Amino acid sequence: MKVNGKEYRTVWMENNTVYMIDQNQLPFHFEIKAFTRWQEVAEAISIMTVRGAPAIGAAGAYGLALAAVNAPEDSFETAVTDAKKGLANTRPTARDLFFTLDEVHRAITEQKTPAAARIAAYKAAVAFADNNARACHEIGVHGNSLLKDGMTALTHCNAGWLATVDWGTALAPFYVATREGKNFRVLADETRPRCQGARLTAWELHQENIDVYVIADNAAGYFMREGDIDICITGADRIAANGDIANKIGTYEKAVLARENNIPFYIAAPLSTFDISCLDGDAITIEERVEREVTHFEGYTASGERLNVRSTPEGVSALNPAFDVTPAEYISGIITEKGIISADRKSIKTITQGTQ
Amino acid sequence: MKVNGKEYRTVWMENNTVYMIDQNQLPFHFEIKAFTRWQEVAEAISIMTVRGAPAIGAAGAYGLALAAVNAPEDSFETAVTDAKKGLANTRPTARDLFFTLDEVHRAITEQKTPAAARIAAYKAAVAFADNNARACHEIGVHGNSLLKDGMTALTHCNAGWLATVDWGTALAPFYVATREGKNFRVLADETRPRCQGARLTAWELHQENIDVYVIADNAAGYFMREGDIDICITGADRIAANGDIANKIGTYEKAVLARENNIPFYIAAPLSTFDISCLDGDAITIEERVEREVTHFEGYTASGERLNVRSTPEGVSALNPAFDVTPAEYISGIITEKGIISADRKSIKTITQGTQ
Repeated sequence: MKVNGKEYRTVWMENNTVYMIDQNQLPFHFEIKAFTRWQEVAEAISIMTVRGAPAIGAAGAYGLALAAVNAPEDSFETAVTDAKKGLANTRPTARDLFFTLDEVHRAITEQKTPAAARIAAYKAAVAFADNNARACHEIGVHGNSLLKDGMTALTHCNAGWLATVDWGTALAPFYVATREGKNFRVLADETRPRCQGARLTAWELHQENIDVYVIADNAAGYFMREGDIDICITGADRIAANGDIANKIGTYEKAVLARENNIPFYIAAPLSTFDISCLDGDAITIEERVEREVTHFEGYTASGERLNVRSTPEGVSALNPAFDVTPAEYISGIITEKGIISADRKSIKTITQGTQ
Repeated sequence: MKVNGKEYRTVWMENNTVYMIDQNQLPFHFEIKAFTRWQEVAEAISIMTVRGAPAIGAAGAYGLALAAVNAPEDSFETAVTDAKKGLANTRPTARDLFFTLDEVHRAITEQKTPAAARIAAYKAAVAFADNNARACHEIGVHGNSLLKDGMTALTHCNAGWLATVDWGTALAPFYVATREGKNFRVLADETRPRCQGARLTAWELHQENIDVYVIADNAAGYFMREGDIDICITGADRIAANGDIANKIGTYEKAVLARENNIPFYIAAPLSTFDISCLDGDAITIEERVEREVTHFEGYTASGERLNVRSTPEGVSALNPAFDVTPAEYISGIITEKGIISADRKSIKTITQGTQ
């Protein structure tokens, strides 16, 4: 997607160097970080220079390709295996990361010489990144069919291109629609406590010249009741076999309010987000994160300094569930790279056939 | 209510001095401001040292009593009239303030000598403050009947004693219940954008040793769906003749979620909040406030400095409706100083008979 008018991906590789947009500095500083050693890539994944499962997966894949480029001929296999372990240890619960590391490693071990293995590793990493970008673009094409000129859409958190290699999931329909010349407006929930909506979604859409407004999470219901919102689209972290979805805390609230106000509520996610081994939402464990995210707020001062300020008095605790479950009954449809399906067991079984 | 174990009101008068808790410094610094001239009281109301309609009303009343104390014998009437105008100009839409200034001024003009007028002014101001504290305590007594040992309650924004002279409205039931030895837990919505829940509600309840937890506004629905919330109580800024209520942005969201999860949702408000000239919620104009409240966040740094940090990127706009309307159908009941009533036209007509 575009940043200052130029096309970027979140992570890419060129001339034996891996490049990433430094997401820790967004939205206040746009900086590309360059890495020439896999250890630097691992460090970048650890400190969340890159975030979002597919983007992390691509970063890991490129990191392992970089390790192959730099591995000495006489200890090639050991060096590559060490790098794979080191990259896998950065974010211990990242499914996409383990998948891409396995893919790139298999491509390496299938070759007979280090020279051939280096080329194969790079190609495997590029293939993952390209496939992810293509799937996200397809989500955008299908989601675009729901958007009409003059509409106002609501989105929650950030399921944008920064979380993937390109295009994003929930935001992909907006990028496709704007390229078709459609005029529409997006309201971005701030998404406390980590404010991914205010920081990342607002930044992404603004860079693409899409008309975006940040609102307090409390205001979404008000705008729905006023008739100001025509459609809601959010991403998902996990989709169960029955169509229940887990996503950023607050998604459930917006889904209930959308149904109460007869507003369609869509989830946009690639097939890799479906987990048919998970029977329903009750089987999903919700991560409880540190209180500090709620008691504090991270932002930038007028002089450009990033810091945390607190609003909750000392001595008072906070509860911080990071995700919630939205039951299938509140979901109008799921936008995938293979089309828009109903959030029900049968449709999910059909579309995931052969993929899991 | 108690602060550091000692009983306080938000505003009071003693020895020709008006005292106020400086709410601008809460929750990080507890400081009592003392004023010996009405101009200082007016300034304090302007800069929100005191906030909340009844508390502002009491501050204005004491301010005018102070003016009478200091007014020279030879220009007593002019001095008092000037003070009344000056105090009224501080917050031009504050109905309680105009009401109390009129009451105190009438008490003054009914007397024949400045000496008698000074005493009458002080007595009228004390009468308003005492009546407000008594009404809020009665709300607490009625609301307490809804609270059972072991319950978890949710509240939104701050309708606590800091917004009144004492006891508060939505929080009054908790103060009465805790004095009866009931054990319960309160979840306080942070209440973006101005975070009155995190700052003020959390501080008030914590000072009274009530078990309070701050949550992101996004998390209320999650806890309701988990079965963790037994009752919701919020305040109201205005109650229409049909039972629709206007309150802080986000109240509507919580009310819809409460009904969806079969959780009772109560409004606590004195009879002075009912506006039977307002037919229903559609007749209530919603104030749109500055974008900066949404794009920025005010809090304290680790070193105790109060400052604003921003999360929304430069160039992106925000929409900031400050209140929303919750239709009567979502409200289980309204807790008033005269008892708990249904949010319907007939009950409201009966209870407000003779008061408006």
